[in-house]
Amino acid sequence: MRTKPVQRDPLAARVLDKLGDFATVTPARFAIAVFATLVALFTVLFSLPVATSSGMRAPFVDALFTAISVICVTGLSTVDMATYWSPFGHVLVFVGVEIGGIGVLTVASILGLVISRKLGLRQKLLAASDANPLRIRRGPVSEGQAVRLGETGNLLATVAVSVLVIELAVAALIFPRLLIAGTPWPTALWESIYFSAMAFTNTGFSPAPEGILPFANDWWFLGALMIGVTFGAIGFPVIYVLKKNLRHPHRWSLHVKLTLITFALLLLGGTIAYFTLEWNNPDTMAGMGLGDRILNSLFLSSMTRSGGFSTVDMGHLDGSSLLVTDMLMFVGGGSASTAGGIKVTTLAILFLAAFAEARGNDDMEAYGRRIPADVLRLAVSVVLWGATIVAAATITIMFINDDAPLDYVLFDVISAFATCGLSTGFTQSASEPTQYILAATMFFGRIGTVTLAAALAASIRRQLFRRPEERPIVG
Amino acid sequence: MRTKPVQRDPLAARVLDKLGDFATVTPARFAIAVFATLVALFTVLFSLPVATSSGMRAPFVDALFTAISVICVTGLSTVDMATYWSPFGHVLVFVGVEIGGIGVLTVASILGLVISRKLGLRQKLLAASDANPLRIRRGPVSEGQAVRLGETGNLLATVAVSVLVIELAVAALIFPRLLIAGTPWPTALWESIYFSAMAFTNTGFSPAPEGILPFANDWWFLGALMIGVTFGAIGFPVIYVLKKNLRHPHRWSLHVKLTLITFALLLLGGTIAYFTLEWNNPDTMAGMGLGDRILNSLFLSSMTRSGGFSTVDMGHLDGSSLLVTDMLMFVGGGSASTAGGIKVTTLAILFLAAFAEARGNDDMEAYGRRIPADVLRLAVSVVLWGATIVAAATITIMFINDDAPLDYVLFDVISAFATCGLSTGFTQSASEPTQYILAATMFFGRIGTVTLAAALAASIRRQLFRRPEERPIVG
Ligand SMILES: [K+]
Ligand SMILES: [K+]
Repeated sequence: MRTKPVQRDPLAARVLDKLGDFATVTPARFAIAVFATLVALFTVLFSLPVATSSGMRAPFVDALFTAISVICVTGLSTVDMATYWSPFGHVLVFVGVEIGGIGVLTVASILGLVISRKLGLRQKLLAASDANPLRIRRGPVSEGQAVRLGETGNLLATVAVSVLVIELAVAALIFPRLLIAGTPWPTALWESIYFSAMAFTNTGFSPAPEGILPFANDWWFLGALMIGVTFGAIGFPVIYVLKKNLRHPHRWSLHVKLTLITFALLLLGGTIAYFTLEWNNPDTMAGMGLGDRILNSLFLSSMTRSGGFSTVDMGHLDGSSLLVTDMLMFVGGGSASTAGGIKVTTLAILFLAAFAEARGNDDMEAYGRRIPADVLRLAVSVVLWGATIVAAATITIMFINDDAPLDYVLFDVISAFATCGLSTGFTQSASEPTQYILAATMFFGRIGTVTLAAALAASIRRQLFRRPEERPIVG
Repeated sequence: MRTKPVQRDPLAARVLDKLGDFATVTPARFAIAVFATLVALFTVLFSLPVATSSGMRAPFVDALFTAISVICVTGLSTVDMATYWSPFGHVLVFVGVEIGGIGVLTVASILGLVISRKLGLRQKLLAASDANPLRIRRGPVSEGQAVRLGETGNLLATVAVSVLVIELAVAALIFPRLLIAGTPWPTALWESIYFSAMAFTNTGFSPAPEGILPFANDWWFLGALMIGVTFGAIGFPVIYVLKKNLRHPHRWSLHVKLTLITFALLLLGGTIAYFTLEWNNPDTMAGMGLGDRILNSLFLSSMTRSGGFSTVDMGHLDGSSLLVTDMLMFVGGGSASTAGGIKVTTLAILFLAAFAEARGNDDMEAYGRRIPADVLRLAVSVVLWGATIVAAATITIMFINDDAPLDYVLFDVISAFATCGLSTGFTQSASEPTQYILAATMFFGRIGTVTLAAALAASIRRQLFRRPEERPIVG
């Protein structure tokens, strides 16, 4: 018996089909369209006079910049976010980062599904018999496509539930700390939920003008933020696997292992670097006790994954720390996460390639698995894309600004590219053309790696059987 | 009949064998040992009181820095090279750059021979039958090894003759120009030979304190320098092939084609960038006519391959041009050349990987050839090595200097790594510890890519037969 079309309302079915086709056949354009639409919508909303605390229409550059920063969960700003916007504006920011954060998780995960479907054994056999899975999926709604749309629904639901659970848990951690600090409970409730959302979505805005400075020495508060940021930055595939197999590490995929180990190494390396390089800096840590130095080094290191909160003024960091931060931010967080950057697995793949080369191995290997060579090509593509965006933006900004110091420009450009949101203050004081360049950098930084990951989907051809292989997600 | 040992003087044979074994079995250590020995020797020579024009012993840091700069044909300096050294000192510089330039050509070419021997069809068949060519080459002198030593001798001779011919030709171009400019003929003779050596070896020192500024608008003189620098920077394998098959491009190897096209694209891109970015800069090109703008943009662009001569003050370049120069210098010149950097083919391989990824090809391809995946791994290793050196040096220098501007530090560090020798002036005015860091950067930049190329030799394993393949040299 042949596959029968699933019964469904013709119009809704057609719309869903179109959307599904758009997402899977041209995933890159789908991602760009989704983000561009959201940015346009929120630019209009932030342009409403009711969105500002002054009641005056925000200048276009500020509305656009804020919309991109919110939807791309970057956290850079051209205005003082805590005072410039009205309560309605703050709700917009809150809703925007949730949409942006869940959006990027979902889009990336859908693309991941598309890719893993193409790489699944069944599809591989199909591909080997020259029956292109893409061609199979088009046409009238088949059982296979119904499952696919169902999967997307399941995925969305799982993402939404995970986001809700994690954000509520982090808010529950922060809420009592704010009460103890003497914050009235309605404010504490709103702020704990706001902080939690800003942490999990890796945005890094603060509800109060003084930011998180009152808690600069507080392990509890900063710890809660670090937990939220890390869950957001580590990526949905990792959360999903850990939820299912927390106690069975042998069932963890290569991607999970690579992400966790690289996260740990970057966190440790960054902490040691800040602890060392800022030791004698009177503007940052020279006056702190040992515990506070460790806490603040650890916190800053974990925020470069792309959380973007800060307890010290980035503009006061030593030049060496700025460069370390540049490198850490450029790497960013995990794949299919709310974090930006080239992604930790991309970096891991580059180093695994160098290790394989040094050892004279024919294949890249990690944890007993062979990593196919085309993964390295994708990693290289992602890095080239990132380096090109950063170089183009930095060179243009240096050209149109006569006295801009390179260390500050490079820092804010990389922060924008990697949607990190840490800032030396350059962004806020920059000229309007420069702010447009930074806005474009945020946008392309956000959609770029997601889009490039989709390129992988197209690059799969039939392969000879060798050793069992596994494919970590890069980009 | 079994292979008979070649008749030869036992002691000389044993020394040659040891040296040959050292070079081929551990090529990395061989390269490091050769360069370290030369640096030590020239540090002693530059420390002789007779080497300075004042007759006083040069401080250790200056003697060491100059020795490394000369042997690594970098062209950076901590002293005014034209006035600080005596005539004997200038002869040391001249001899040093010739040894350094020919040395790196020879070492790189020997390593290339080792590699190509391992990759030769015969050796591949041997490797496929589990007879390791490395094992075969050890032990008593076999006919095969005698040929190998002969090949090395031939190679050295070819390199030496090529260097002599090219340097004389360039000197013959420069000599009449100096005479026309009114220079007395003995000075013109010495200076034309000196300039020619400094151009071909990609060193970039000038015999006179005013450098090449008197010829800043002279197509003839600057053209001769560009020709010399380009021949030096394009690499011996390219020169060798062009000499043999200049009129038969279909016989050119993939390496030659990739090197030439990348050279051309970088030259053009750099020229356009400088022409545009310096258009309004009153300190550099704003006052020039159109022809001079084109000449000086072209000249600066070609000097980033790693010639290191300059007609404009690098410290006066726009910040955007400094960044463009950073990128161009980091790439450097051709493989097995007197130039430094990660090498143009390394960059080409990265982009070919990204193109293959974007097109969905299973293999990297160029000019109808498939490029094996391990070449990409080597390219990635070289870039990681370069980025690590540059990052480590820059971060350390920023840490130990409180007010060092990042744009100048990064520029001189990359110039040191890529043995380019262009300078913003930071090197000469830097503190002693900083100068040691820059000296180390020059040394590791020079031996690094040569050493890493040797890693390729170890990475070859048996391969399945696919399409006919070809291996460009990277690093
Ligand atoms: K962020
Ligand atoms: K040079």
